[in-house]
Amino acid sequence: MFVGDKHYRTIWFNPEKDLVEIIDQTLLPHDFVIAPLTNLEDAAVAIKTMQVRGAPLIGATAAYGIFLALRENTSDKALEEAVERLNATRPTAVNLRWALNRMQNKLQPVEEKRRGEEALKEAQAIADEDVRLCEAIGKHGKGIIEKHFAEFAEKRPVQILTHCNAGWLATVDWGTALAPIYAAHNAGIPVHVWVDETRPRNQGASLTAWELAEHGVPHTLIADNAGGHLMQHGQVDICIVGSDRTTARGDVCNKIGTYLKALAAQANNVPFYVALPYSTIDWSMQDGLEEIPIEERSAEEVTHMWGLNDANQRQRIHITHPSSRAANYAFDVTPADYVSGLITNCGVFSTNAAGMSALQEQIRAESEENISYCQ
Amino acid sequence: MFVGDKHYRTIWFNPEKDLVEIIDQTLLPHDFVIAPLTNLEDAAVAIKTMQVRGAPLIGATAAYGIFLALRENTSDKALEEAVERLNATRPTAVNLRWALNRMQNKLQPVEEKRRGEEALKEAQAIADEDVRLCEAIGKHGKGIIEKHFAEFAEKRPVQILTHCNAGWLATVDWGTALAPIYAAHNAGIPVHVWVDETRPRNQGASLTAWELAEHGVPHTLIADNAGGHLMQHGQVDICIVGSDRTTARGDVCNKIGTYLKALAAQANNVPFYVALPYSTIDWSMQDGLEEIPIEERSAEEVTHMWGLNDANQRQRIHITHPSSRAANYAFDVTPADYVSGLITNCGVFSTNAAGMSALQEQIRAESEENISYCQ
Repeated sequence: MFVGDKHYRTIWFNPEKDLVEIIDQTLLPHDFVIAPLTNLEDAAVAIKTMQVRGAPLIGATAAYGIFLALRENTSDKALEEAVERLNATRPTAVNLRWALNRMQNKLQPVEEKRRGEEALKEAQAIADEDVRLCEAIGKHGKGIIEKHFAEFAEKRPVQILTHCNAGWLATVDWGTALAPIYAAHNAGIPVHVWVDETRPRNQGASLTAWELAEHGVPHTLIADNAGGHLMQHGQVDICIVGSDRTTARGDVCNKIGTYLKALAAQANNVPFYVALPYSTIDWSMQDGLEEIPIEERSAEEVTHMWGLNDANQRQRIHITHPSSRAANYAFDVTPADYVSGLITNCGVFSTNAAGMSALQEQIRAESEENISYCQ
Repeated sequence: MFVGDKHYRTIWFNPEKDLVEIIDQTLLPHDFVIAPLTNLEDAAVAIKTMQVRGAPLIGATAAYGIFLALRENTSDKALEEAVERLNATRPTAVNLRWALNRMQNKLQPVEEKRRGEEALKEAQAIADEDVRLCEAIGKHGKGIIEKHFAEFAEKRPVQILTHCNAGWLATVDWGTALAPIYAAHNAGIPVHVWVDETRPRNQGASLTAWELAEHGVPHTLIADNAGGHLMQHGQVDICIVGSDRTTARGDVCNKIGTYLKALAAQANNVPFYVALPYSTIDWSMQDGLEEIPIEERSAEEVTHMWGLNDANQRQRIHITHPSSRAANYAFDVTPADYVSGLITNCGVFSTNAAGMSALQEQIRAESEENISYCQ
């Protein structure tokens, strides 16, 4: 998507400089800085310190990390050590494991002198596939937005509420929840996005609002507390959020607070959509509430906050009394009953039994090779 | 309630110093500072700049402000000007108007030379009545907490979630939503309070957590997003919140985000109580969603935040990109169907038709004089 008047991905190989480049997301929304990744360690640190985040982008970064490792040392041992190093950066990231396995399986059989070049090809392929997946999600979700626009006779923008950041910054391009919004906006359908701040890490305020602003999509930042009030007063036409893991019956695990918005959506007859690539569905799980473990993160994310002081310097402040204990649950689970539909790269599916089995069938029907782009 | 090992009110007359003193709430939770009010202007500024806030406390401060004005000039004109000056500080505060009317009606007929002394008496009376009202709310609410404790055989603390600050800092003492919690805690019933941060003004993080900590009540600060998850997992036994205005049929207007917690409470069979003095009920209104105007406040409250930097100085930071627009709705309305009961100074009443009419009858049955303490 656009930053200013230039199109960017979140990660790319720069052939002139002969290195990988990323957008350093820890400095957003205040500074837009492109950071170089010149070796394995750079890639590992970028994932570990969340210069890159979002499951798909973490996967792509790990793949490029393998390339950076192999162009210095092409041995089996180097490959194995690189996989191990990258694997240790974010212990719970499913896509990280997936990308590393794919790189390892691809490169192990390749003769040493061609490994560097093959690694770059495969990393590029992973990145390109992610872009196509997200673009397909955007295409299917755009249909929903279009339908709403037609319903009110094209007389006003479609009002969409989103939570956290499931935008292009979380993927290589397009995003998941924001892909339909970009697709609609690019097609000239007027949209306005209510951006949940998303405490405690503020990904809505710092990432979603930033990327929508840079791409020129009208939006308004709100406190996480405000969404219910907006829905009561008819100011939200649809909700679209992303997902970290979705079960076979359609229970959706996503950033803490998603469930509260789903409750408000159902109470006020606002359709609640979850946008995700097929790979986010965990077909081995049914009951999300019982089966998905919820990560507890550092209390400091609740008690402290980063921002820009009056001298334009990034600064951390303590917003509570030193003696206040805090708890920090990172995700919650929205039961399938509250989800109007899953917007996937393979189309839009209901979360009832028929919808979920149709989705599973469609994915099965495609060959491994084609799954990524099934549409 | 206690700050350290000393009992405080939020406002009091100090006879040794011959002035009124308040806790400067703009400096909490980082600094506990007692500020003097020596004249009318001090009182007006204290209300305007939110050194004191919360409807009952604003009313009491206005009453003391009239006293401070009259001890300098006891004329009719001075009384009238003082009322006008104080009335302009917070245009939407109902209690402010109520306290000023009461002071004016009381003092107008008094001969000039006795007005100063009578004003102090009446201000003290208003403050004392508020304390008794809140204590009565605490007594009735304590019964509910006690019942829960008995239900799980007294084997673990009662888990209570609250939103915003309806504690003693919002009143003269005890608070409304927190009064039952203090009453239970003081009676030796073990409680643990989940404190919603309450973005965007953070009254939960900065005020509720602070006052619970100082009084020694176990509590944990959470992001506003976390309550639904906690209720899904059986970690909340009851919710208790305050109210800024409640309609005749029991619709509750309170700090933005209250409605989302009420939705989660109903979905997970968690009783949702609203604690309030009789004076908060607006018997002239029925449909809170349609009839109660919702204040929109400055976007800066969403885009900026105050806290303590590493050098222990209070500092404001900007948490979004400068181009990000924000909306800031201050309150929302929770329909009566989601409210399990109103904990009032007159007892606990259901928000169904029978309950509301029983409450109204009880208030009517009491004489004007006794209403405040009906129990």
